Parts: sequence; C-alpha cells; structure tokens
Amino acid sequence: MAQIDLSIVIPLAILAGLGFAGLLTRDVLRRDTGNDRMREITAAIQQGARAFLRRQYRSIAIIAIVLAIVFAGAIFGSAVAAGKSNAVELGLKTAGAFALGAAFSALSGFIGMQVAIRTNVRSAAGSLKSFNDALVIALRGGAVSGLSIVGLSLAGVSILYYGYGALTPASSQNDLVLSIVGFGFGASLVALFAQLGGGIYTKAADVGADLVGKVEAGIPEDDPRNPAVIADLVGDNVGDCAGRGADLFESTAAENIGAMILGVALLPVFGIAGVIFPLVARGFGVLASIVGVYVVRAREAESPMAALNRGYLVTTVIAAILFGVAAWAMLEPTGGAADPWTWARYWACGIAGMVTAFLYVWITQYYTEATHRPVKDIAKASETGPATNIIAGFSVGLEATWLPIIVVSGALLISYWLGQTTGIAGGGLYGTAIATMGMLSTAAYILAMDTFGPIVDNGAGIIEMSGMSQEARRNMDKLDAAGNTTKALTKGYAVGSAALAAFLLFNAYLEETGIAKFGVNIAHPETFIGGFIGAALVFLFTAYAIRAVGRAAWAIIKDVRDQFRENPGIMAGTAKPDYARSVDIVTRSALREMVVPGLLAVATPVAVGLFFRFVRVTPGLLAGEPLGGTLMVGTIAGVLMALVLNTGGGAWDNAKKFIEAGNLGGKGSPTHKAAVVGDTVGDPFKDTAGPSLHILVKLLSTITLVIAPLLIP
Amino acid sequence: MAQIDLSIVIPLAILAGLGFAGLLTRDVLRRDTGNDRMREITAAIQQGARAFLRRQYRSIAIIAIVLAIVFAGAIFGSAVAAGKSNAVELGLKTAGAFALGAAFSALSGFIGMQVAIRTNVRSAAGSLKSFNDALVIALRGGAVSGLSIVGLSLAGVSILYYGYGALTPASSQNDLVLSIVGFGFGASLVALFAQLGGGIYTKAADVGADLVGKVEAGIPEDDPRNPAVIADLVGDNVGDCAGRGADLFESTAAENIGAMILGVALLPVFGIAGVIFPLVARGFGVLASIVGVYVVRAREAESPMAALNRGYLVTTVIAAILFGVAAWAMLEPTGGAADPWTWARYWACGIAGMVTAFLYVWITQYYTEATHRPVKDIAKASETGPATNIIAGFSVGLEATWLPIIVVSGALLISYWLGQTTGIAGGGLYGTAIATMGMLSTAAYILAMDTFGPIVDNGAGIIEMSGMSQEARRNMDKLDAAGNTTKALTKGYAVGSAALAAFLLFNAYLEETGIAKFGVNIAHPETFIGGFIGAALVFLFTAYAIRAVGRAAWAIIKDVRDQFRENPGIMAGTAKPDYARSVDIVTRSALREMVVPGLLAVATPVAVGLFFRFVRVTPGLLAGEPLGGTLMVGTIAGVLMALVLNTGGGAWDNAKKFIEAGNLGGKGSPTHKAAVVGDTVGDPFKDTAGPSLHILVKLLSTITLVIAPLLIP
Repeated sequence: MAQIDLSIVIPLAILAGLGFAGLLTRDVLRRDTGNDRMREITAAIQQGARAFLRRQYRSIAIIAIVLAIVFAGAIFGSAVAAGKSNAVELGLKTAGAFALGAAFSALSGFIGMQVAIRTNVRSAAGSLKSFNDALVIALRGGAVSGLSIVGLSLAGVSILYYGYGALTPASSQNDLVLSIVGFGFGASLVALFAQLGGGIYTKAADVGADLVGKVEAGIPEDDPRNPAVIADLVGDNVGDCAGRGADLFESTAAENIGAMILGVALLPVFGIAGVIFPLVARGFGVLASIVGVYVVRAREAESPMAALNRGYLVTTVIAAILFGVAAWAMLEPTGGAADPWTWARYWACGIAGMVTAFLYVWITQYYTEATHRPVKDIAKASETGPATNIIAGFSVGLEATWLPIIVVSGALLISYWLGQTTGIAGGGLYGTAIATMGMLSTAAYILAMDTFGPIVDNGAGIIEMSGMSQEARRNMDKLDAAGNTTKALTKGYAVGSAALAAFLLFNAYLEETGIAKFGVNIAHPETFIGGFIGAALVFLFTAYAIRAVGRAAWAIIKDVRDQFRENPGIMAGTAKPDYARSVDIVTRSALREMVVPGLLAVATPVAVGLFFRFVRVTPGLLAGEPLGGTLMVGTIAGVLMALVLNTGGGAWDNAKKFIEAGNLGGKGSPTHKAAVVGDTVGDPFKDTAGPSLHILVKLLSTITLVIAPLLIP
Repeated sequence: MAQIDLSIVIPLAILAGLGFAGLLTRDVLRRDTGNDRMREITAAIQQGARAFLRRQYRSIAIIAIVLAIVFAGAIFGSAVAAGKSNAVELGLKTAGAFALGAAFSALSGFIGMQVAIRTNVRSAAGSLKSFNDALVIALRGGAVSGLSIVGLSLAGVSILYYGYGALTPASSQNDLVLSIVGFGFGASLVALFAQLGGGIYTKAADVGADLVGKVEAGIPEDDPRNPAVIADLVGDNVGDCAGRGADLFESTAAENIGAMILGVALLPVFGIAGVIFPLVARGFGVLASIVGVYVVRAREAESPMAALNRGYLVTTVIAAILFGVAAWAMLEPTGGAADPWTWARYWACGIAGMVTAFLYVWITQYYTEATHRPVKDIAKASETGPATNIIAGFSVGLEATWLPIIVVSGALLISYWLGQTTGIAGGGLYGTAIATMGMLSTAAYILAMDTFGPIVDNGAGIIEMSGMSQEARRNMDKLDAAGNTTKALTKGYAVGSAALAAFLLFNAYLEETGIAKFGVNIAHPETFIGGFIGAALVFLFTAYAIRAVGRAAWAIIKDVRDQFRENPGIMAGTAKPDYARSVDIVTRSALREMVVPGLLAVATPVAVGLFFRFVRVTPGLLAGEPLGGTLMVGTIAGVLMALVLNTGGGAWDNAKKFIEAGNLGGKGSPTHKAAVVGDTVGDPFKDTAGPSLHILVKLLSTITLVIAPLLIP
C-alpha cells in the first residue's frame, strides 16, 4: 500500500478540541451558582486570581521581551558573522516563534484559570443537588483547560510549520523545523515563571494561612475570619491551574517539535509524512480525550476515582486504536524493499509509551496513598515525633525514584529496540520519539483530571465558608480527596513524560549541532564539568524555590498578625478582614521571589555553552559537548529530584490525612502534630519546587536548541 | 638533568609514619588516666566498642570472603574463556590484592579505634591539669590514627606492586598495576560496611538516647541514669573513628592505584618514575604531616581551632615544597626535546589540588558555622516552628552544593590544562591525577584532626558523667566544639577528594576497557539509562541508610523504656542501668541494617555491567559504555547528595547550638525545640548517609575497574 495523507486530522482536531472546550464552557456557565454568600466568596477568589495573573503576566512579559530581543539578536548576529544570507529571516523567525509560544502558553494558562474560577462555585452548587452533578461539572470545567491547552499547543506548532513553510517555500524541511524551536523555548520560559510564581504564591498562602490561623489563632481551616483564607483559595487556582496548564502546554509543544526534528532526519524514508506524523498523532489524542471526558458519570455508590479512571481507560483505548490507524496510514517507508510491518513496530512503540503512563500513575498511587506501606510507615514514624516523621518521609521520597527510573529506562530501551528492528538508519531514535507521543497522547484527559483538583478544592472551601449542609460538605470532601489524588497522579505523569521528552529533545540538539555522529563523551573533563553543573543547577534551583516559599509565607504571616492586632473585631466575628490586602501582599512577594530561580535556570545553560565555546582544553572536543553534558545530567538529576519532592510531599500529606481519619491517635494527638510538620515541609516540595523542576528539565532542552547556533565557533 | 630515583622515600615514609604512630601511642598511653570513676566509664566504652567491632568485622569478613571468591572466580573464568595462559595467576593475584586491601582497611580502623578509646580518658584527665594538655593528647591520639591509616595504605600498595613485580618479573607494568586494583576494591568494600554499620550504630544510639532520655524522661545528655548513654559514647568511636578511618584509607589507596594506572600510560615519557611518583608523593605527604602534628601547641588565650589550623598550614607548606622536590626529581621526560618546565607544570597541578583542599575547608566553615548567614537563617526560621526549620536547613544543604562544584570543576580544568601544556599526549589526564595527589597529600594531618573529634567528644562525656570541676568541663567543652568543626571539615575534604579521585579512577577504567579512544557517549540510550540508574542508586542508597537509623533507633528506644519500667531504681539513682544490654541491642540491629544498602551498592554496578554486556541495541555501542555512564553520573549525584546531607546536617546542628548559646530565646524555648527537630533529622544525614556516600562513589570506581575484564564479550 502507499501512504495515506492524514494531515487533515490536524485542523479537524484543533477545531474539535477548541470547539468542544467552548461547548463545555457554555454548559458549565449555564449551571446554578448557588446562593449569594457563595457568589460573594467566589467573586473574591476571582478578583484575587485575576489581579495575580495580571501582575504576573506583566512581569513575565517584560522578562520575555528582553530575552526575546537578546536571543533573536544573538542568532541574527551569529548568522551574519557566519556569512549566512538569511540572517534577518532567521532572527525574525526565531523571535516570532518565541513570541507565539510565549503568548499561547500564557493564553492557555489564562483560559484554564478563567474557567476554573467560574466552575468552582458551580461545582459546589451542584453538590447541593447530587454527587454526580458536582463531579461532572468539575471534570468538564477541567476539560476546558485540558482541551484548550493541547489544542493551542497543536495549533501553534502547526501555524508556524505551515505558515513559515508558505512564507519561504524554498527553505528545506530542516531549516523550517529549526525555525520553530523558538516556540518551545517561549512556551518553556512562560511555563517556568508561571509555575514558579504560582507555586510560590499558593504554598506561601497555604503555609501562612495555616501557621497563623490554625496554629496561632486556633481557628479551623477555611474560617472566614482568617484574612489569608481568600489568598489560600486564590492560590489553588494560580498555582495548580495556571501553573500545570503552562507545564503541559510546554511538554506537548516541545515533544512535537523534537519529534519533528527527528522526522526530518528520516525524510528519505518516510518523506514529509514522518515530519507531520507527530502532529497527526497529537490530533488523534485530542479526539480520544473528548470521548473520555464525555463518558464520565459517577454512580452514587462508587468512589469518584473509579469514575475518573474509567474515563482515563476509555481515552487510552481509543487513543491506542487511533495511534495504530495513524501509524498504518503514514509510516510506510517510501520506495525500497522495506519491512511491511514498519508501522506495526512503531505502533508498538506508541503502546509502550501509553503503558509507561499507566505504570507511572500506578507507582504514584502506591507511594502516596494511605492503603500502601510507604504512607503507613510515615504515619507510624510520627509517633516518635516530627523528626522521625521527616526522616521517614524523605526516605520514602528518595526510594520512590527507583521504580519510575526502571520503567522509563525500559520504555526507552524497548522503543529504541523496536525502532531498530525496522532496519531504518536512525529508526531507533524515532521509536523513542513515538513512545513519547504515545505517553503524551492522553495529555488532554490527564489535564482535565488535574484541573479538576483545584476546582473541587475551591468548591469544598466555598461550601465550608458559606456554611452549607452536611450532605453537600460530604460530597465535596469526597471530591476534594479524589482531587488530591488526581493532582499527585498528574505530577507523576508530567515527570515521566519530561524524562522521555528530554531524551528526544537531547537528540534533536545533537542533530542540530552536528555532534550526533561523534557523541557526547562524558569522559572529557569539560563534558564532565558540564554534567556536574547541570546537576548542581537542579539542586540550587530547588534550594531557591523552597526558600522563596518560606520568605513569601513570612510576609503573609506578618500581615495576618497585623490585621488581628489592628482590628480585634475580626476575631470576634464583628468585622470583616481585609482579604484583598493579604492577596496583594503575597502576590507581590511571590512575584519578587520567582525572578532569581527563574533567571538562574535560563542563565546557567547559556553561561556553560558560551564559556566552553571559548575555553576548551581537550583536543578534539566538540563545541556543543559540554552543554550536552549539562543537559543530560541536569535532566537526570532534575527528574530524580522532582520525583523525590513530588512523592515525598504527597506521602507526607496523606500520612497526615490518614491520622486525621482517626488512626494512631487521630486529630489533635501528638502524632498528628508531628504529621502536620511533615505536611507543611512537603507543601513547597510538591507544589512549588517539584513541578517547577519538570519545566526546568524541558527548558534546558529548548534553550540549548535555541542557542545551539551560537556554540559553533 | 636526568631523573633522580626517589623510590627510597617510600619505605622511609612508611617506617617513619608507622614508627611515629608507635611513639605517639607510647606517649599517650603513659599519660594519667584520672580517677576510678573515669576509668570505670572508659572501660565500659572500650568494652562496648570492642564488642561492636568484633561482631562487625565478623559480618564483614563473611561478606568479603564470599565476594572475593565470586569475583576472583569470575575473573579466572573469563580469562580461561578468553584463552589467556595466565588465568590462574590473574585470579589468584586479584584475590590476594583484594584480601590485603580488606585486611589493611580493617586493621587501620581497628588501630585508630583502639587508640581513640584509650586516648579519650587521658585527654579528659589532661583537662584537669591544663587546656594545652587536653588538646595535645587528643590530637596525638588522633594522629596515631591518621599516620597508621596513610602508612598502611601506602605499605599495602607498595607491597603488592613490588611483591607481584618480583613474583613475575616478565609481566608488563600494565598487567602489574592492574593486578593490584583488587586492593582498592577490598578497601572500598570494608570501608563501606564499616562506615554504614558504624554510622547506623552511632546515630541510632544518639537519637535513641536523646529521644527517650532528654525528651521522654527529662534527664540531661550524658546522664549516667540513661541506659543508652554508654552506647552513645561507644557510637562516637565506632562511627567516627573506625568509619572515617576506613573511608580515607580507601581514598588514598584508590587514588594511588588510579594514578599509577595513568602513569603506566605514560611509560614512554617518564619511564617507571611516572608509575611510582604517586607513591613517592604520598610518602612525602606523610613526612609533612608528622611535622604538622608535632608543632601544634595551644596558647591559653586562643581558640583550639587556631592551634589546629596552624598545624594544617605547616603541613600544607611542607607538603607543597616536598611535592615540588619530587616533581623536579622524577617528572623529567626521558629523551626527546621535551619541555624543561614539565616538572614545574605538574608541581602547579599539585598546588591546585592543595588549594582545592583549602577552599573546601573554607566553604564548609561558611555553611556550617553560626557566624555566617546560612546557619543564622536556619536559627531564625526555627522561630516559626519545626517545619520552617526543616525547609530552611534543607535549602541550605541544597545551596551548599554550588560552590564546591565550581571549585572542583576549576581544579579539574586548570590541572588538565596545565598537564596539556607539557605537550605530552595524555599529559592532561596525568595533571588531574597529580592535583588529586596534591589534595590528598595532607590526608594524614586531616585524619588526625578528624579523629580528634570523637576523642574529645568522649572526653567531654567522661568529664560530665564523673562529675568533675567546672574548669575541666569548660576546657573539654571548648575542645568538643572544635571537634565538631574538625569533623565537618574532614567530611568536606573527603567529599572533594572523592570527586577528584573518581574522575581519575573513571579514566583508569576507560584505559582498561579500551574505550578511552572512543569515549562514553551519553547520547546512546544504554549509556543514558546507565547514568539514570547510577543517579537513582545514590538516591535509593540514601533512602535505605537514613531509614536504617530510624529502625535501629527504634530498637534502643524500646530497650530503654523497658529498663526504666522493669527497674524503677534506675531513675531514682539507686540502681545501675544495664549498659551492656543497650549496647548489644543497637549492635545487632545496626549490623542487620547495614547489609541491604551495602549489597545494593555492590550489586547495582555488577548488574548494569552484565545486563548491557548481553543486551545492547545501539549499533557500535562499546561493551563498557553503559557502566561508564552509571559510574560518572552516579559519581556526580553521589558527590552532590553527600554535600547536601553533610552540610545540611552540620548547619542544623550548629543552628541548634547557636540558640542554646542564648540567642533567639535560648535553651528550652519553642524556637529551641524546633531547632532540635532539625538537629535530629540532620544526624543520620551527616553521620550515616553522607559519609557512606563518599565511599559509595569510590566503590563504584573500584568495582567497575575489577569487573572490567568481564564486560568485554
């Protein structure tokens, strides 16, 4: 058979994804918003979230514009120096792709959060009627986020690919794809700052509200007398919705571009079909996710996770079938006595990626749910005080790196081997790219589950603050617990896909710098040093990220204490606290604190690259090698550290919840107090530093791709 | 000029080192042992320490013998399979070298501890007379340890080199040096288990004694009513003396062998002088350390650190001069129009290593002393409770990786560059080897300062338990504080030298597997996976090591509670607790807990090597490459993690001490309670997992060197 052109799937999937997101938005917005008190609370949350996002985007825009000018100028300059005739074009194209990536990333974070802060109150109002209503509304609100993000990512890459192609029809596929790598870098950059700023905000507000509210003043969580309570609810949105949205936007975009670069290397084999296959596969994934979201319905007796898992299973099965269709139609080697089962081998690579996603979800559950050994160990260790709780939790986090690494290693090895069996030169690498596509094909559904988390978290807060019925509270609390699980799962998924995507992007970097043929020899001292610095960057970045939370928390604690002192009516319940003031203070300090770690992540690879462009002592060392070491070892360290932080944080959280459920002395016991310490330590680990590290890993890849032309003397 | 044969320095230095150690032992043993009560306490410590060491050595011996048979058999088998005529000889030589390395490592730990447990009471008795007496006795007791360890390490390598050379005069220098790599592996293996078992013991006893004594029963530290108090004092000896002794024994041995392997590669340039230069340089270092120890005297008004630092400076200056003499005499290229300044360039490499040692000591002080920002930050963060104390301390530990990595990178780059400027092919690598020699040339003095720590710690405990005068207490407390600093400094020194030595050993591995010409390409999926596993091994090992402390502590806590319940006379002070029972319980559980992490460290590189010997998918992949990835990335991760654990732990400890000195509320305040949590968390970090990681890093190197012949299909 001959290849079948499935490129029509790309625009169809973009339209279907964004269109369905629009329909879901209309569906959600039509729903009941409860009573006045609920609307009042949600209005305060919306106001705070919008104010934060507005300021944050302004800060990020300034940073992005400066960096865009610097990088585009440097690329233009190096092209001029190299005597390239298309220097202006290269500079402009990179800047354009960067701007679109940054803008779309910001836009997808914005959309997701706008819908989430409207869905929270509607899901809460739904819980007054039935459990199913609350669940379906929250998931659909989350799906708006998931579908817009993946749709926009696909749209951005496609617009650039076809648009730049139409602008300069004479340019090679290679130049074409390379001119759009700026998109991935723009997306990473915005994602990093969005996640960092949001992550610092959310945990500073959380820690601050808890320490001064629960511990000092002795009032319960979500008590309306606490001036920081709205800041805390705002934090769920700006940290979890906007942050993770930008993260996965970036993952899907970077993975698409990386796979296309490898597709270009296979032009003689698959022709143009190999280049656009990643886009088609992503399109099919969007379609599968739409079906998955649509089928979720809760049965009254079952746990919400069962309903959500059903949707995930449906999405995966449909995605697997469509993936096979795409491979069968497009991955037929053109000409030559090629292996007729090539498509099936690559399909199997895609399946390997999907299995990896499943295993990651399963492993995360094992390490962070109270039904298994690790969380129980931490709870037990809390009996001898906070110190043993911390040691046990940290130990669980460290241990939880092992299985994920084995799984991702297995996926890499199997997909590389399957790709090799096609007999195509470079076919192994393309196999690992396809495994990454497989893993990310369900991204839209996973994102929907993820955004579900902060929506129901907010919903539960609104129900609590407005003093609703026990029934409604029970419903929302059940959903809130499920939301904690989905948030943990998504992080596992995000870090696994980051590891796979990074390997892919790394090879794209080697292709581009022309060192693929020679390799990155870590025995060269410069490369070894590059690797050392890559790993140390991860450690230093983590240090700054978690410290930033402490500093920003300090600011809000001070404000709450001041408010209690200035106006004694607040604690008496006769006066309303100034919520906006707390929101404002934590906004300003979170944005201030995000700058240093963010710039550190950008500056380090640039510094390593440029330093070793000029200082090289090993004879025969290639110009891009030391930065290759930084990239690879930084990726390994980043993935491992993210696993430690995410899993440790999640396990501490659930050990505390396990005790609160009445085990080992229950709420208020010394054991519980010890577990609260672990939970507080885990907050910045799992919601600030961990998720930011996923993005750091991918930023390392995209930034090295962008600066690669500067490294060749 | 022609080369001058300085090989006579080797036996002279061994004799001088061991002889001076004997003289110092006689000097120390002659000193006064105080009163009966003091002698009674020290007898209990000696009994416990000997019982632990006896059992520990029995366990290690079983493991070592099994492994020796397995490895020697495998090497014999692979040599037979390869049709080598000298298969029996190779197998026997490897086994012999392994046995000698294991035995000497054990012996040096044994000597150090035997002297330390006799010096403690004499230093305490000295403090009754004068401050200077207490200091000089403790340092000289420590120097016995330092000089014996370095002397035995040099003796072992020399005996094997000259002995095997005499046995089979026909074998090439290459075969000769390779036949002694088993010495390094034997030393690493014993060092790992000695440090792990001792580290688990010491911290389990410490945490257990504190939790149940200070927190539950409300009695002060070192109170004789606490049944765990002798176990705690025993722990200082078996953890710090025996453990670190084995660690640095291993460092110096592995560095010598690695440098000799690189020297063999330069045979055409320097002849045999390049091979034995490392031994001569080490010999001169021993002589310099003897002078350094001899000149230390405390002036009454100054701090003990000033006196110790003076000795360190003297040692470094003399070592630097002698190093220059050795380079001038031996590193003259034979024949050809060689650069006459070759020796000076290599001398500068050695100086670079010494500067690195100085900088490490300085950086460690910055991060762990209360006079600087990091420790103050942690103390301040304790005001908002244990959670913020933990976050701040962890953040300091993470941050503290950055400067050391820059320093070690600089040392590598500069020494490689200096070596390159000689114009000798492979001269760059030899330059990094010489920098490592420079860094380790002061090892004997550093070790003396290190063992000084547990001696004065014990001494202070003996003074406290026997109720001596305020004057004596003040003297010993001042020394105890200095001992904490020297222990922290030595760890910084050990981790820095581990990083340098690992790069050296890695290149020796490449030489041996014959992949030096091709390199270790981390872009190959198998190598990338190997790297991933190397880093994950570090994380998993850390998880097990710190968890082991928790488990062993649990056992001793249970015992102390039981003793208090069974015999109420203990708390009343009318009955003596059963110290031996506590010692016995913690001995058994520490030895049980050391097995899993220890075997994990041995099994992982073997498993990676063998797996990828058979499963390789990348065309052109070299057999040893994936394990090379494990080694290099594991080294990077291990060094960074050790820095986090050592520095974080030290900073927590001193933040607590800063508060206890009367700052921020002082002892007993909520701030102090929060700081105690951090200190307890830091204990297994800095005294169990961290120091064990140094050895893990070097074990990775030596084990890969030993199994290298098995990896070539």
